[in-house]
Amino acid sequence: MTIKGVVPPVVTALDAAGNFDRPSFDRNIERMLAAGVHGLFVLGSSGEVVFSSDARRDEIVDAAVETTAKRVPVIVGVIDMQTERVIEHARRAVAHGADGVVATAPFYALGGEAQVRRHFELLAQAVDVPVYAYDIPVCVHTKLSVDLQMQLAKDGTIQGVKDSSGDDVSFRRLLLANREAGEPLALLTGHEMVVDGAYLGGAHGAVPGLANVDPAGYVRQWEAYQAGDWATVAAEQDRLTELMDIVFVTSGLAGFSAGVGAFKTALQLLGVFETNRMPEPATTMEGANVEAVAGVLRRAGLLED
Amino acid sequence: MTIKGVVPPVVTALDAAGNFDRPSFDRNIERMLAAGVHGLFVLGSSGEVVFSSDARRDEIVDAAVETTAKRVPVIVGVIDMQTERVIEHARRAVAHGADGVVATAPFYALGGEAQVRRHFELLAQAVDVPVYAYDIPVCVHTKLSVDLQMQLAKDGTIQGVKDSSGDDVSFRRLLLANREAGEPLALLTGHEMVVDGAYLGGAHGAVPGLANVDPAGYVRQWEAYQAGDWATVAAEQDRLTELMDIVFVTSGLAGFSAGVGAFKTALQLLGVFETNRMPEPATTMEGANVEAVAGVLRRAGLLED
Amino acid sequence: MTIKGVVPPVVTALDAAGNFDRPSFDRNIERMLAAGVHGLFVLGSSGEVVFSSDARRDEIVDAAVETTAKRVPVIVGVIDMQTERVIEHARRAVAHGADGVVATAPFYALGGEAQVRRHFELLAQAVDVPVYAYDIPVCVHTKLSVDLQMQLAKDGTIQGVKDSSGDDVSFRRLLLANREAGEPLALLTGHEMVVDGAYLGGAHGAVPGLANVDPAGYVRQWEAYQAGDWATVAAEQDRLTELMDIVFVTSGLAGFSAGVGAFKTALQLLGVFETNRMPEPATTMEGANVEAVAGVLRRAGLLED
Amino acid sequence: MTIKGVVPPVVTALDAAGNFDRPSFDRNIERMLAAGVHGLFVLGSSGEVVFSSDARRDEIVDAAVETTAKRVPVIVGVIDMQTERVIEHARRAVAHGADGVVATAPFYALGGEAQVRRHFELLAQAVDVPVYAYDIPVCVHTKLSVDLQMQLAKDGTIQGVKDSSGDDVSFRRLLLANREAGEPLALLTGHEMVVDGAYLGGAHGAVPGLANVDPAGYVRQWEAYQAGDWATVAAEQDRLTELMDIVFVTSGLAGFSAGVGAFKTALQLLGVFETNRMPEPATTMEGANVEAVAGVLRRAGLLED
Repeated sequence: MTIKGVVPPVVTALDAAGNFDRPSFDRNIERMLAAGVHGLFVLGSSGEVVFSSDARRDEIVDAAVETTAKRVPVIVGVIDMQTERVIEHARRAVAHGADGVVATAPFYALGGEAQVRRHFELLAQAVDVPVYAYDIPVCVHTKLSVDLQMQLAKDGTIQGVKDSSGDDVSFRRLLLANREAGEPLALLTGHEMVVDGAYLGGAHGAVPGLANVDPAGYVRQWEAYQAGDWATVAAEQDRLTELMDIVFVTSGLAGFSAGVGAFKTALQLLGVFETNRMPEPATTMEGANVEAVAGVLRRAGLLED
Repeated sequence: MTIKGVVPPVVTALDAAGNFDRPSFDRNIERMLAAGVHGLFVLGSSGEVVFSSDARRDEIVDAAVETTAKRVPVIVGVIDMQTERVIEHARRAVAHGADGVVATAPFYALGGEAQVRRHFELLAQAVDVPVYAYDIPVCVHTKLSVDLQMQLAKDGTIQGVKDSSGDDVSFRRLLLANREAGEPLALLTGHEMVVDGAYLGGAHGAVPGLANVDPAGYVRQWEAYQAGDWATVAAEQDRLTELMDIVFVTSGLAGFSAGVGAFKTALQLLGVFETNRMPEPATTMEGANVEAVAGVLRRAGLLED
Repeated sequence: MTIKGVVPPVVTALDAAGNFDRPSFDRNIERMLAAGVHGLFVLGSSGEVVFSSDARRDEIVDAAVETTAKRVPVIVGVIDMQTERVIEHARRAVAHGADGVVATAPFYALGGEAQVRRHFELLAQAVDVPVYAYDIPVCVHTKLSVDLQMQLAKDGTIQGVKDSSGDDVSFRRLLLANREAGEPLALLTGHEMVVDGAYLGGAHGAVPGLANVDPAGYVRQWEAYQAGDWATVAAEQDRLTELMDIVFVTSGLAGFSAGVGAFKTALQLLGVFETNRMPEPATTMEGANVEAVAGVLRRAGLLED
Repeated sequence: MTIKGVVPPVVTALDAAGNFDRPSFDRNIERMLAAGVHGLFVLGSSGEVVFSSDARRDEIVDAAVETTAKRVPVIVGVIDMQTERVIEHARRAVAHGADGVVATAPFYALGGEAQVRRHFELLAQAVDVPVYAYDIPVCVHTKLSVDLQMQLAKDGTIQGVKDSSGDDVSFRRLLLANREAGEPLALLTGHEMVVDGAYLGGAHGAVPGLANVDPAGYVRQWEAYQAGDWATVAAEQDRLTELMDIVFVTSGLAGFSAGVGAFKTALQLLGVFETNRMPEPATTMEGANVEAVAGVLRRAGLLED
């Protein structure tokens, strides 16, 4: 199962007590599949992977695998600080049905590119599903260089990349190097507000958190891309980028609470999630912030007045 | 004279003794005008503005204004640490014929957004030509926010932006906000390796350093953009991004010496510049590094074997 | 058991196969206790906490608790990305005999000071041993502010701080604020090369990684501090700072591999550790790097010629 | 004239119209000389060097040189973006009577250590007074390495360092390396809140901005240091660090406006400066912020109730 197209990083639903809310989670997956998404990425940064116990991770993978039932590939984030734990997560994810695993560079203790390379090699040796590199320096404080990514591609260590680096120059150079090498990598952008530019450069897909809220928009954009209809690709992006205002209109919140909090709040407002409850110690949106998110959804025509 | 289209940041030519090399500088301008560029930006970061004495700045502006002879607008970088000196530079630039001035946020001593705003307001009050904001956090360590840029636009303080922030999400949000406000700003990307994505988002032009080396490529890309021929826009970008390898193939150099050094070396190899001499204390490319740049030019078909 | 004095962050010993080397680990603890250290901190950054599985963490805590046998307090790092897992580690550490737990701010996903505060409050509610805050922005990318630390102190959430922030201005302001509040916090510096300055400011102790190599030096320094003999405090520091050259004299290594690698290599050269084996994916020192560490130990008189 | 002891970075006085206020400036110098300071550093970061035109720089140097009248050395900041302008400033400063010049690494355009080295070498060749390196990465975004500083010392390029790096580990290693090399450098800390730790490590002096407000305190601390009376050294530091609260108690201000703004406001409250006027585009303190600064001065006993 090759990864391409729109592959949303699935947001995790919690009930009011903070437990995993399987019905809400499943509704979100069914809604995205109905919209035509091409894969699912669970336990990503916005899937609250780092807030989850091992047992919670298992619950989420089980739900995604069962609910999806092979209609599209399910890839699983195996994010942790260093190799030993990442391999543990990867083996469990595979045992629970993951079609691929997604790992970042190691973090907290850094040690240079040789160690990052060794980390991915050990991971690839430990599992027999595709390994995707997750380039997210804002969280792990290491940027995967174009050279390293291409080395890992050429020796078969990784099969693709989710690029959330915010460095579109590096991503363009990666696209060109990958093409020259015969396209060993599936290259997906995590840059949800400028997916159109990545497509123009030849990206194989996108992993937009906002696709939890508007999966149909990203699917229409993908289909326009496949048809070479660039005016539509850009127009959908403009619309989606304006919808992304949900993460900018609130106040008193920062980072994860503002970003994923806005996605959960939108999903609750849209009737997909039962609650917008965030994992501890993040802050759950209330009052004026919920209203601000609703206002953006209304302007976008996603919510009735 | 409104700024739009391809507006190269003009590289400054030096002779072997480190003096301003007017004939080489003029040849470069004539070559770019012949290729069809729509404006010129002198004394930008790659125009070695911060390496230049006040007298040198005057020489460069005089040469650009005289040689261009109003065929296209000439905008002038008035970059300095704080407002007092920036205004001095701006008044001189205008006295020497600048059609507009380009200023960054203040730097070295920082003080928050209120001071950045005050800085641009004082500058705009001091001159009667258009003021363009230069958003270049890698050099000045302040990012101009979308909100600040739109405030400065709405009250008429600035007429445009050169965005070299490397933050394409912010630039896309700026494009959308500017459109909603009736397009008070001319928005140009300085992001030479992904100009196509900026055009897809609706940018009014580009300020690519690499256009010193291949102005015709950027002009063809602009014309394809105007014609809605996105396949050509992207294909030209791929070609130009590969040409930009001139800044990555050398060794032992960093930052300005590697980047502008590659442009100067290419211009020398192409017969435009007499020397590739860099200003003190930067390092001038020699030997294997020159050969590496030549190799990229040959692969791009710009230099004979 | 109050924490004060010299509390080394205990380096973890591995055998050639990468398993926990209990005899070496115990020898190191006995050597430090014989030198007179006042407490032990296991599973800190240099105790390779983030490289360890849960089972490995248990092994290390068990060994430290048994070997120390209440001669000094054993505090345990419960470092992980977010609150849920940190609480799991804390409960296990307490169940295995920890006299206190040491936690950083949450990392990977950031969310502002309110979330950091909530994180420590939830941790303190979950265990009934003292909680120490570990201020290490180089790893977690959040600096604990003086105000936050004092709030957590005044409401009884934390009982002390290990300051590895490298921000001695903040630490001095914390020392003064703590004194004014009646000294609710035990304030220990992790800044091994300038412990003398922290003592002059009134610190209650130090957590120097280098104390694995020369525990007697740090104990002599502490005793001189208690006696008000500042010339000796500073002279010991100069000697220890020169010994710290073991982390600067090697080549081709970075970060954790260079730092903890030097400690392990020194301990092997001193006959305390069986090997200098590093956890995957870090690099184990060999050849010229081992010789370079040995050279520093010889100049310091710790190793025979 | 060798630099050592307490060398305040002299704050620049402005009148209500923003012109240089020579009488206030002179009063401040006379007050500091009366307190026993050992040198003066004009046109430093807090001397608003980057806000000043060339003419303003000359005014300030002239005033300092004339008023001081060789009672102590006057060293002059020649801070600018790159070498050409720095040399211009240095030649003018020497022509106007500077006993030494103080330069940072080049900034805005960066290029690696070889260029930083070349920068200082060219400067040293251009003037025949001592050159001091100003290590201030927060402003110039380059840290001077211990190795580079010692190379520049050994070949006679620089005669001393003002260390405002905030990196006390690097400063301690520099102190040790300088001692081993026979003390070619005068090493002064700019770290006003932890001068005592620098003295314990053997620093030759301090350049504390706060000495504009309380010069007598820093002189007493220096004299206690010379006498080996460490309890007094630390007690003075505690008192001065509490006085430094003037930069933390205000609100709505950032960076330079908060820091130098507090010094100017304190000097006005103490009757030394006529106004607390800041240079454009910085913000001048008013109302509650002035009152907050006054409160700290009262608690410190520097201002009557």
